[in-house]
Amino acid sequence: MKAPTAAICLIGDELLSGRTRDINVQQIAGYLRPLGIPVEEVRIVPDVQARIVEAVNALRERYAYVFTTGGIGPTHDDITADAIAAAFGVGIDKHPDVMAMLQDRYDEIGTEFTEARQRMARIPDGASLIKNPVSGAPGFQTGNVFTLAGVPSIVQGMLQDVGHRLEHGRVVHARTVRVPGPREGDIAEALSDLDKSYEEVSFGSYPWFRSVNDHGVSLIARSTDEAALTTAARKLVELAASVGGDGEIIEGEAS
Amino acid sequence: MKAPTAAICLIGDELLSGRTRDINVQQIAGYLRPLGIPVEEVRIVPDVQARIVEAVNALRERYAYVFTTGGIGPTHDDITADAIAAAFGVGIDKHPDVMAMLQDRYDEIGTEFTEARQRMARIPDGASLIKNPVSGAPGFQTGNVFTLAGVPSIVQGMLQDVGHRLEHGRVVHARTVRVPGPREGDIAEALSDLDKSYEEVSFGSYPWFRSVNDHGVSLIARSTDEAALTTAARKLVELAASVGGDGEIIEGEAS
Repeated sequence: MKAPTAAICLIGDELLSGRTRDINVQQIAGYLRPLGIPVEEVRIVPDVQARIVEAVNALRERYAYVFTTGGIGPTHDDITADAIAAAFGVGIDKHPDVMAMLQDRYDEIGTEFTEARQRMARIPDGASLIKNPVSGAPGFQTGNVFTLAGVPSIVQGMLQDVGHRLEHGRVVHARTVRVPGPREGDIAEALSDLDKSYEEVSFGSYPWFRSVNDHGVSLIARSTDEAALTTAARKLVELAASVGGDGEIIEGEAS
Repeated sequence: MKAPTAAICLIGDELLSGRTRDINVQQIAGYLRPLGIPVEEVRIVPDVQARIVEAVNALRERYAYVFTTGGIGPTHDDITADAIAAAFGVGIDKHPDVMAMLQDRYDEIGTEFTEARQRMARIPDGASLIKNPVSGAPGFQTGNVFTLAGVPSIVQGMLQDVGHRLEHGRVVHARTVRVPGPREGDIAEALSDLDKSYEEVSFGSYPWFRSVNDHGVSLIARSTDEAALTTAARKLVELAASVGGDGEIIEGEAS
């Protein structure tokens, strides 16, 4: 089996302008990690159909799964459903099940099911729906592309209806050794040697500088092989000691 | 003059794994906004040379300016400088000015200028340096591509040596009207009508849901034309009033 991989396409002018700081990459990557599906590329594109189509087509070709976020609400700049239909070269129409579901929902809360709200029922032909336990209007799956909302709490909800559709891969585990004091240059050579010695483990280092008295380097080892990882983490503690640091092994990719 | 545009290429496995939540897109977009240079695309790629080369070449072809962040430190996974040289098909070597500057710096703080640290002096042939007022090791400009550090405080510092190199465009101003209460569906049709009526202004709406008692929609108008924007903002206040909301005009893209 080829290892399953994922890409994320965030859609929205507000992310590019800096108005909104994205949290969905972290959220989706965090959801996929225990399924053994690494995120290998992210693109952020504006609310412009041609740009969405181009990005989605490039990504769905290359990665096993693509997740889009944003642009499936009721307003004029919500054009993701149309863009996905265009990317796949299929039609798009109001989906009868979604129309009925939304009609019930709006009846219940005594709100008019306006033409604008009916836009949220537009689903590309042949897509399957993704449940939205938060606000009703669903996402949808078209081939290997999963179209989710942009609001993080709704993304979280929709992901619960996605995992069972994915082929799982081997989970990448991680150990972190936080070393207060040194700079990256102090450990770079030893870390590079470790990286060369352990083929099944990849090593990274992430410096932090909070103040003159609070800086250091987090050393991280990642592997699908738990036994190799245990050895690697012990090596990182030795490396920390060699630069006078008192490193403790923490599960996962701690900061 | 063709309007100047920008793209950002974030480089780093830690962003794709979700370990680190990016803040540099917001930071760079916020720096470019008053210069009239909109960010039109972002890509996040792993620490893999072929992927960096591909993204940088695609982006520098299409946008006036490209900003990369990350991967210019001293460790084995810091491969951005080599990737940029490969993207431009130029050589790369230790830059004599940077070697001298870093040697001075490490002498001053009594730290060995190791082979690993000397990696930070590797600069693509023909690039011009970008000052790093925070930690010394510079970024660099190669053609229309600006290669910056990944650590946000260093990015902020390096940007101060970038603005004067850029052709400025017309600044996009914004006004926000926050309307507690309604959902997007309540204002979508009226907002779409406004968007059609005012050619020089683009309108957006961003819902928020904090709790059952704290939700609503932020309506935003954006334009390079201040007079048109003043009229547009007044129209948004009228729209807010029409759905029973008490909207006040706020400068900029408030959330």
